[in-house]
Amino acid sequence: MRKVYHEALDEIAEGLVEMTHLAASAMTRATTALLDADVQLADSVIAADAEIDARREALDLKAFDVIALQQPVATDLRIVVTGMRMSSDIERMGDLARHVAKVARLRYPDSAVPAELRGTFREMGQVAERIVEKAGSVIAARDVDAARELARDDDAMDELHRQLFARVTSADWPHGTEAAVDITLLGRYYERFADHAVSIAERVVWIVTGEWSPESESDHEDAEDADR
Amino acid sequence: MRKVYHEALDEIAEGLVEMTHLAASAMTRATTALLDADVQLADSVIAADAEIDARREALDLKAFDVIALQQPVATDLRIVVTGMRMSSDIERMGDLARHVAKVARLRYPDSAVPAELRGTFREMGQVAERIVEKAGSVIAARDVDAARELARDDDAMDELHRQLFARVTSADWPHGTEAAVDITLLGRYYERFADHAVSIAERVVWIVTGEWSPESESDHEDAEDADR
Repeated sequence: MRKVYHEALDEIAEGLVEMTHLAASAMTRATTALLDADVQLADSVIAADAEIDARREALDLKAFDVIALQQPVATDLRIVVTGMRMSSDIERMGDLARHVAKVARLRYPDSAVPAELRGTFREMGQVAERIVEKAGSVIAARDVDAARELARDDDAMDELHRQLFARVTSADWPHGTEAAVDITLLGRYYERFADHAVSIAERVVWIVTGEWSPESESDHEDAEDADR
Repeated sequence: MRKVYHEALDEIAEGLVEMTHLAASAMTRATTALLDADVQLADSVIAADAEIDARREALDLKAFDVIALQQPVATDLRIVVTGMRMSSDIERMGDLARHVAKVARLRYPDSAVPAELRGTFREMGQVAERIVEKAGSVIAARDVDAARELARDDDAMDELHRQLFARVTSADWPHGTEAAVDITLLGRYYERFADHAVSIAERVVWIVTGEWSPESESDHEDAEDADR
């Protein structure tokens, strides 16, 4: 019985890590679709989101069964309940990648991103991939130090996001309102993607230490507010 | 012991309903702050978000204790686990109201909303208030029919959101890029607010029936995608 139980806990963690890989792949491919105006790639990202949703559902059912049948307490209960929250975060990250792909699709055969901002979006895509892969490693290793490090990647995302806003709202923005609307939403999708990775890291810290790291949480809040 | 247990379940539901009232009040006041360029009101919305966050934390701790100490199964376990998800939804709704208030603050002493769009935002505020209050009633009464009805309010929000997008991206938008960026983000905040209310309703349906309503979920997804 105990063996089955610990296997179930391990499977939840492994399932979450696999979901982070899927989310990383989705955002990376969405970024390429966006920059290259690759509508087939955009469609594949949109279609692949169903797999992330299905994984989340399977994982939640498993977590639910573990609670109902094994009645975990203390740290084990934290792992299971928090696992359900992390699966929500990652599922939402998949949605955000799909949103990026949908913008790519909408503007095809053009790119939604003006040439002068391609570098910024390439970087945002790289930071997004890095931060979600790190979130996966944090889950796998329950690594509190790495969890705190991850906030630095979020700072990088926030800085890129701020640059975007400054450019879009500058007096000499030459690309018109539709492009401004696209860039505004795209910027928000990447920023929210990184926020969810930060949440995952915070949740791992909570599992390990039993408390929220107020510093990390307030950074996260400040970062989210920075663009307004 | 059983009495304590059922009292705890009731307290979770009541706590969630109270949170919906706070979120409704926050979004209603944020809308007024936005339309009237009322910076004191905006500040009060921003400050009051901490109360919603604190309620969520208290509620989650209670839910966690119930699981650990009472080891609920079946429907009771669904109520507790889903309660934690609903508290997440409502907390996020509070964040979105705060974001609206922050836009009001940022543009003070001007209003971020051009005169021609005041009516649309007034309506979005009304729909937001109605949908979150309905979500509260759905939680209180576990009313599956009302939960399904609530999707219609979300349709109304999506339609208002579409109107905003059409206006902002029309060739004759006269208010400049900064206003377009504000309106784009504001529209998204209201739309996401309504989406979370739909999620709450879906979760109640799940508690009562044991399954997700695929129709409602797919409506919700379609609605979210409609603006892109």
